[in-house]
Amino acid sequence: MSKFDEIKHQVYQWNLELSRQGLVIYTFGNVSGIDRKEGIIAIKPSGVAYDLLKPDDIVIVDLEGKVIEGSLNPSSDTKTHLVLYNHFLEIGGVSHTHSTYAVAWAQAAKPIPIFGTTHADHLHLDIPCTEFMTKKMIQGDYEVETGSQILKTFQNISYEVIEMVLVAGHGPFTWGKTPEKAVYNSKVLEELAKMALFTLQINPQASRLDEALIQKHYQRKHGAGAYYGQIPSSK
Amino acid sequence: MSKFDEIKHQVYQWNLELSRQGLVIYTFGNVSGIDRKEGIIAIKPSGVAYDLLKPDDIVIVDLEGKVIEGSLNPSSDTKTHLVLYNHFLEIGGVSHTHSTYAVAWAQAAKPIPIFGTTHADHLHLDIPCTEFMTKKMIQGDYEVETGSQILKTFQNISYEVIEMVLVAGHGPFTWGKTPEKAVYNSKVLEELAKMALFTLQINPQASRLDEALIQKHYQRKHGAGAYYGQIPSSK
Amino acid sequence: MSKFDEIKHQVYQWNLELSRQGLVIYTFGNVSGIDRKEGIIAIKPSGVAYDLLKPDDIVIVDLEGKVIEGSLNPSSDTKTHLVLYNHFLEIGGVSHTHSTYAVAWAQAAKPIPIFGTTHADHLHLDIPCTEFMTKKMIQGDYEVETGSQILKTFQNISYEVIEMVLVAGHGPFTWGKTPEKAVYNSKVLEELAKMALFTLQINPQASRLDEALIQKHYQRKHGAGAYYGQIPSSK
Amino acid sequence: MSKFDEIKHQVYQWNLELSRQGLVIYTFGNVSGIDRKEGIIAIKPSGVAYDLLKPDDIVIVDLEGKVIEGSLNPSSDTKTHLVLYNHFLEIGGVSHTHSTYAVAWAQAAKPIPIFGTTHADHLHLDIPCTEFMTKKMIQGDYEVETGSQILKTFQNISYEVIEMVLVAGHGPFTWGKTPEKAVYNSKVLEELAKMALFTLQINPQASRLDEALIQKHYQRKHGAGAYYGQIPSSK
Repeated sequence: MSKFDEIKHQVYQWNLELSRQGLVIYTFGNVSGIDRKEGIIAIKPSGVAYDLLKPDDIVIVDLEGKVIEGSLNPSSDTKTHLVLYNHFLEIGGVSHTHSTYAVAWAQAAKPIPIFGTTHADHLHLDIPCTEFMTKKMIQGDYEVETGSQILKTFQNISYEVIEMVLVAGHGPFTWGKTPEKAVYNSKVLEELAKMALFTLQINPQASRLDEALIQKHYQRKHGAGAYYGQIPSSK
Repeated sequence: MSKFDEIKHQVYQWNLELSRQGLVIYTFGNVSGIDRKEGIIAIKPSGVAYDLLKPDDIVIVDLEGKVIEGSLNPSSDTKTHLVLYNHFLEIGGVSHTHSTYAVAWAQAAKPIPIFGTTHADHLHLDIPCTEFMTKKMIQGDYEVETGSQILKTFQNISYEVIEMVLVAGHGPFTWGKTPEKAVYNSKVLEELAKMALFTLQINPQASRLDEALIQKHYQRKHGAGAYYGQIPSSK
Repeated sequence: MSKFDEIKHQVYQWNLELSRQGLVIYTFGNVSGIDRKEGIIAIKPSGVAYDLLKPDDIVIVDLEGKVIEGSLNPSSDTKTHLVLYNHFLEIGGVSHTHSTYAVAWAQAAKPIPIFGTTHADHLHLDIPCTEFMTKKMIQGDYEVETGSQILKTFQNISYEVIEMVLVAGHGPFTWGKTPEKAVYNSKVLEELAKMALFTLQINPQASRLDEALIQKHYQRKHGAGAYYGQIPSSK
Repeated sequence: MSKFDEIKHQVYQWNLELSRQGLVIYTFGNVSGIDRKEGIIAIKPSGVAYDLLKPDDIVIVDLEGKVIEGSLNPSSDTKTHLVLYNHFLEIGGVSHTHSTYAVAWAQAAKPIPIFGTTHADHLHLDIPCTEFMTKKMIQGDYEVETGSQILKTFQNISYEVIEMVLVAGHGPFTWGKTPEKAVYNSKVLEELAKMALFTLQINPQASRLDEALIQKHYQRKHGAGAYYGQIPSSK
């Protein structure tokens, strides 16, 4: 028994969900959750396949990345997760996948244009894509620098509104108030990535959604007078 | 027990079918059914995921949109459903999804051309796409105006013959004599949307199906001398 | 009990296989089998969904199309099947689907080029596509004319070697010594249709496979000195 | 009982995995494993469908290709496997599929460019594609020459680092220290093939990943100071 059993089990479940949702094969992703009171995060161990993962394999590390509990190495992306937790102070979970279509946009190094209301129901901007990292960043503390690159992309964007990013040449990171919401965002991002590619294939001159329609859909779900859903606080 | 139990259960089942058919993820769609004698529709509650939905969650509203039974908010698209029921007097069900390929055509703001007999087996015209809504419509009674935009598109088209539409920048709405038929149409539309995109990828100059062949397939299934299927009245 | 129970059950099973293999939705296809000694074919009833189909629903018709046994109408494509059985005298089964990628090539009215050994393992020519039917053919005995159009396409092609065709603007028909082989060919055709489209997307100048390599793969599986597989007679 | 029961069962299992992973239909692939001490390989029999395959069907052949145990013919690709085992002395398993996207690249006769870190996590070069075989090679000892063509492609590439290849006009072969790793590589290759195609569809000018980033990802997983995963020896 450990006081971290609950968060380990929760993070274990949301890691499995990546696999159930078809967002990862083998070890191609990782989900973490934070307990800000205890000052720790729970994260998937590195290189363990989803079908072999057990709740007790989840690793507990502190906010500097020191392992507090667990016999396995934490995800090699742990430092990137920590940069996000340490700067996006209201988030409770982070999800990273190599889902096919989101990766394709990241490899193409293009933001995903907002073409429709499915996108606007979730965010009112194009899904941002970072710049490519410099050689110095890559050869430095790489996973920390991946986080820094995300922060730089969000200098003028609210992480509470836009809960997803494409890291150029790599793939998507998403987050949210809970690990569940972070994983939800991974799935939504993959779906938006598909829709946007197919839209351009049908009409290479497809135009960005009208700003009034973006605001309408975004605000009816997330704004002050939102009337989508059941419980305002869970929107 | 409620006198609406049967329609609630039916509408619940056809909402689940959207998920089973791979047409929706999470809360990305809604199905409703009407009881014209009672003057009510049964519709999915807003923002409830398909895997959590229970028959009793289905909301009963009258034809002005007032909730008659149910503790949850009805779908935020309820007013659009009501416009359709109030003007398309022979329909019994409405289905709305964000299925991937149909949304892509809606985002591309293009009608789906009739390229083959799969399409002609179901309708003899291109699948219509509305115009984009004006800023005034968007900022007005948006969901009612979405319905109005569909009505405008059908000014010279019979809703009894063409049971589907793409709302530009948004996605598909389909309908039919029953909720079952509305959901069937959602699936058929998604399949036609795929086929049409792949056809254009193989041959960007692919030509619209010859009118004689369109009529042949449409009429053998739906015309006066139809010989497709088993029971003429269920065609 | 009927003397046709065995063929009805067999044809029932291979109709279901279309659905299990993801080649059809709803009623989008039909499989038949022939008993040449009895002079009958067994075929799917028209407009019955795969998940509702029962073995006893399979209809027995003679080679002129007269119903011999069964209470349901046979497939509306029955006459096309009969043309094939009456002219391709060695075949034992016919399969017709509206599988997505094969239909896309049929709608594009293009033969599927032989780009690789997967194709050459099964046939040594491009997969033929018929010409579009004339208005007169369409307005005549349409399903018979569909068969005639296939026969015309095979004037200089052996139906025993090339067991599949695309009917322009419609979709694929496949056949074989048994219903099982016909359905196998439907699946292989769909896979070849996908591979060929993706090949052209990667390299629009992709070249037809070298004739020597086509012959090598085709002959090692189907030729006099074939060494692929286990039992020469089942090749 | 046979002293080869264990390797037969292992090779049987990894053949089935090809089907479970969606990499093959019907008989479109084969996996083998080697016991170098015994001087034999275990390989799938030719033309047996995955859903009918039994452990005892696996054929044992020596390194010249002579059948040592088993009543069925070994895969028609056996000689290609043997060339690989006889020249790539550290490998323990070989996998060959006709997976859709990898075949498309092979048919397009293009190496798969390294566009992102998913690729660089596994190999630091483009996935090589052989040249087309000459008519003389095709009409000679074809399956041996297929192996020779792969060897020629690897003249200046380490087979221990790059465990996969596309044979032009044919499809992928992959290998690894074990049959399990070979099958893993088949799946990863298919995923990389998809990602690369979609990347080019989004951005036809997408650039090869920066060499520093390639090295970073490759080395953190496979290099001397690797810190990805749990057990250095299993990397």
